Amino acid sequence: MTSEAGCERAGAARETAADKLIRYAEMMEEALASYIPDCAFPESKVAEAMAYSLLGGGKRIRGALVLAFYRLWREDVRPALPFACAMEMVHAYSLIHDDLPCMDDDDLRRGKPSCHVAYGEAIALLAGDALLTLAFEAMAGAGRADALSGEGVLRAIKCLANAAGVGGMIGGQAIDLEQEGKPTPPALLSRMYSAKTGMLIGAAAMVGCVLAGAGEEEQSAAIDFAGCIGMAYQIVDDILDVTGDEALLGKPVGSDDDNKKSTFVGLFGLESAAREVMLLHGEAKKALGRLPGDTGFLAGLADILADRKA
Amino acid sequence: MTSEAGCERAGAARETAADKLIRYAEMMEEALASYIPDCAFPESKVAEAMAYSLLGGGKRIRGALVLAFYRLWREDVRPALPFACAMEMVHAYSLIHDDLPCMDDDDLRRGKPSCHVAYGEAIALLAGDALLTLAFEAMAGAGRADALSGEGVLRAIKCLANAAGVGGMIGGQAIDLEQEGKPTPPALLSRMYSAKTGMLIGAAAMVGCVLAGAGEEEQSAAIDFAGCIGMAYQIVDDILDVTGDEALLGKPVGSDDDNKKSTFVGLFGLESAAREVMLLHGEAKKALGRLPGDTGFLAGLADILADRKA
Repeated sequence: MTSEAGCERAGAARETAADKLIRYAEMMEEALASYIPDCAFPESKVAEAMAYSLLGGGKRIRGALVLAFYRLWREDVRPALPFACAMEMVHAYSLIHDDLPCMDDDDLRRGKPSCHVAYGEAIALLAGDALLTLAFEAMAGAGRADALSGEGVLRAIKCLANAAGVGGMIGGQAIDLEQEGKPTPPALLSRMYSAKTGMLIGAAAMVGCVLAGAGEEEQSAAIDFAGCIGMAYQIVDDILDVTGDEALLGKPVGSDDDNKKSTFVGLFGLESAAREVMLLHGEAKKALGRLPGDTGFLAGLADILADRKA
Repeated sequence: MTSEAGCERAGAARETAADKLIRYAEMMEEALASYIPDCAFPESKVAEAMAYSLLGGGKRIRGALVLAFYRLWREDVRPALPFACAMEMVHAYSLIHDDLPCMDDDDLRRGKPSCHVAYGEAIALLAGDALLTLAFEAMAGAGRADALSGEGVLRAIKCLANAAGVGGMIGGQAIDLEQEGKPTPPALLSRMYSAKTGMLIGAAAMVGCVLAGAGEEEQSAAIDFAGCIGMAYQIVDDILDVTGDEALLGKPVGSDDDNKKSTFVGLFGLESAAREVMLLHGEAKKALGRLPGDTGFLAGLADILADRKA
């Protein structure tokens, strides 16, 4: 069996960031499939619903960040793979729950019916719950890899839980819903964006650092990088909701407007939004200068995210 | 400050199991309140909804099992307290999600409006998600207590995640919903009960053992004890749904029948159900004989659960 590290060296010369993202995504896809348990209940659809939403789609940005940051210090990324998978499980659960009728009520996700449209609301709710739970099981079960310290694994679990919790992603999502139809002050919008999207992206970078044993200053550079690309990611989402191509996005445009949501574009206009993305992109690149190792992939990833059409 | 261990010695002579359960519940209540974060978003109701469902109610059986099993080997139960709290957070989240309209659609819980009736469906869904996430954050954050090993903490996290996941509580809940209105074979009903209720109760016992460093044979006795009281607990639930007092239960009786659910009572009748509870109760007591230390509280707890009216 060729080691991941071996592959990485052999292909490094000609591998673009887009290629590497695909390669990381393929590693994750295989690992994620192995986590969906042979359900104790063949009578139930819930494991199938988990697989439906978790596998075969998504850019795997969050998982790739775990691997890429870990890779700055360690040659073989495989010990970090369960954590990259956990990040993607948490992301998938959040999309299932966000799409539910009582939340954003979205029928389409990545060009196919949302989980609750395919499996019904109750099973979709449980599939989301199960993916969140599985994320923690996967991380706790990875603790025995020789490359990782128990303390590093516990810090990684705490970091992900904190970013996904009520002070992070869930809090941001709650504010997003509670602010619907109301004018949102710019400062609150910015905090909401940071919590809803930025903190999980930040946690992905941090988890990679923490597992690899990075120092405080390096962790701080990682957080700065992730904070900028996370905020840019959310603003690009707003832009695409106005100017995007429904076929590429796999979901209808104009939903923010339909849901009476305050967005960066709504508050400041398309031109300011595009300028802000450029600024954040520049800041992200600058933060990479404070990190060791080959940061080429992370720079390329920042480019891909700023230029994305879907 | 008087240590918990000190209190325990002083009061041991006169303290009944019911008293001790109340004392453990009070310890948990205080700790649980401290976990509800000063929400990053005072604009949002989600932290309030978490507190509404987590605090001020419940028998705290699962958390008490963590403490009681840990106590068989260790004098001071405080290092296990974050894990007892995590167990109660997972239990509270499961009740919030179970009560949602797309699930059991229950408007009352412990004599007060269900979380979604009080806060709306979206906030209730997010409060449940946040409590599940907080459970793992609490456990991972407890890893630095001197009394606990990092490996023990990771095993405890894995154990809880496994029992709460698709092969345990979530799988059992899914089957329960998917079987509504269909005749359920007794073997499936038994597996469903074990998954829906028994596995989390078993995990509570196991977490106490694992944190205290118990051996394999002792863990196996703990699992046998918890398996029996877990199954008995579910059958008592079925009995109370037919014969219970609505005022004591804090919820309407007859809901299993209304929801066309297969239950032990429905399949075998009240008399067989009561006999099965007695048998399981005897088995549970027998399993205690294979455990070290003072198992008096656990025996008393088994009595309380078998005789409960709510």
